[in-house]
Amino acid sequence: MKLMRVGEAGSEKPALLDADGKIRDLSGHVADIGGEAITPTGLAKIAAIDSKSLPEIAPGRIGACVAGTGKFICIGLNYSDHAAETGATVPPEPIIFMKATSAIAGPNDNVVIPRGSEKTDWEVELGVVIGKTAKYVTEAEALDYVAGYCVSNDVSERAFQTERAGQWTKGKSCDTFGPIGPWLVTKDEIPEPQNLGMWLTVNGQKMQNGSSKTMVYGVAFLVSYLSQFMSLHPGDVISTGTPPGVGMGLKPPRYLKNGDVVELGIEGLGTQKQTFVADR
Amino acid sequence: MKLMRVGEAGSEKPALLDADGKIRDLSGHVADIGGEAITPTGLAKIAAIDSKSLPEIAPGRIGACVAGTGKFICIGLNYSDHAAETGATVPPEPIIFMKATSAIAGPNDNVVIPRGSEKTDWEVELGVVIGKTAKYVTEAEALDYVAGYCVSNDVSERAFQTERAGQWTKGKSCDTFGPIGPWLVTKDEIPEPQNLGMWLTVNGQKMQNGSSKTMVYGVAFLVSYLSQFMSLHPGDVISTGTPPGVGMGLKPPRYLKNGDVVELGIEGLGTQKQTFVADR
Repeated sequence: MKLMRVGEAGSEKPALLDADGKIRDLSGHVADIGGEAITPTGLAKIAAIDSKSLPEIAPGRIGACVAGTGKFICIGLNYSDHAAETGATVPPEPIIFMKATSAIAGPNDNVVIPRGSEKTDWEVELGVVIGKTAKYVTEAEALDYVAGYCVSNDVSERAFQTERAGQWTKGKSCDTFGPIGPWLVTKDEIPEPQNLGMWLTVNGQKMQNGSSKTMVYGVAFLVSYLSQFMSLHPGDVISTGTPPGVGMGLKPPRYLKNGDVVELGIEGLGTQKQTFVADR
Repeated sequence: MKLMRVGEAGSEKPALLDADGKIRDLSGHVADIGGEAITPTGLAKIAAIDSKSLPEIAPGRIGACVAGTGKFICIGLNYSDHAAETGATVPPEPIIFMKATSAIAGPNDNVVIPRGSEKTDWEVELGVVIGKTAKYVTEAEALDYVAGYCVSNDVSERAFQTERAGQWTKGKSCDTFGPIGPWLVTKDEIPEPQNLGMWLTVNGQKMQNGSSKTMVYGVAFLVSYLSQFMSLHPGDVISTGTPPGVGMGLKPPRYLKNGDVVELGIEGLGTQKQTFVADR
């Protein structure tokens, strides 16, 4: 299933995209796409609904594909060729950092370049949405705890991230720096999460063109690994790192300016399109 | 006012501690201590209630002093003498990192030493609870955005934090590593947040004995600074760094073992007491 949230920011309705490409209102059945609704039981209930019985919603703004995210966990340098382009080596175990959940935005919302920013950059990433509380789970069972996948743009301000005193949080957490969606695609539709083409363009020019098959630490490993440190809860999102082609890695580096348009997508998970707007 | 949350984990009632030390039930007036209830308008409504009209609650488990925390932001190395004991220098601007909100616990709950941990450490810190959405606020107006203060123990696993590949998140985000409370003390009761005695003992032995007056970057500066990077929302918590005396800084270092009891407190903000329990 392709689950989504449609409507103005803060008042989105839960919905699904049916086989005919129509958006169907789920608000008579679930409160939102998140929490209980995306657990195995919750997803089974949604799957049992005859989608033709659901009211159609006219296309409009699409919100972030999951609500009530408690943790937005990102993995750093998780593609060997991306690590190389940033001058870093592949870490001996995953690098974890947090993005503020207040950075979460709809897939096509404007992204605000914060005041003082000169190095706002893009990162297409495979997002993993947790569907069941996970603690100390093994890699073999890890995918049982995943509800599904989404496109994530881990927008990053490189100066804030690396030139402003330790830790990456400041460069990752700016408002609107976390577009996720358009859909939470349930995992039954994505049998091979480690073999998904992914791409990103800036003003129509292809900048990233990779595949999740070159991830160093795969989805199952990451869910298991993270669960050794902390409980993962339904609605938590893991953004699993980016393939090569970010602005910081170009010679010379290239960063996003007011009016730039970024489009990105992952095979089977849909596309995003954002206009970057300077906050003056 | 001293606002608090009383009851079993996940079903706490909002309450206040009255002038006679009695716990009074606020659940007839607010849904919880968080969100709208801790905005300036919300706090004014609570202040207008005659506390004697509120039902008394028998003392029991105390929950985290604020609910619905979206961001748990911590400041690193924010006491010059603590920086020195860890072998680091005071950073040219604040170091920010995130603690998972799923780590939040009640002030007297057991703290779970995670599997594989050998370096679980303590950090008494002044917690700041945001009461109004803050974006690009100046230092002069920053305290207008603060609802109040609390005691915070920024429990840290030093090996996970610094020996397990980049970024501190892994060592800071373990379940139960974020006891906050017992009370959210509204800022009218704390006119001088930069002059509060703070202390911590392990099995009765004094380990930390400092004052918020030696903080490098004060509360108003931090709220303003953080708001340049991201919006702060009601219920967000900022843990502002720890004075000297952590286990990592001792020669030889000392870390917490199964059964150790940690007590900590800050002038005017109450005390916490945690038993550390190994997760086997």
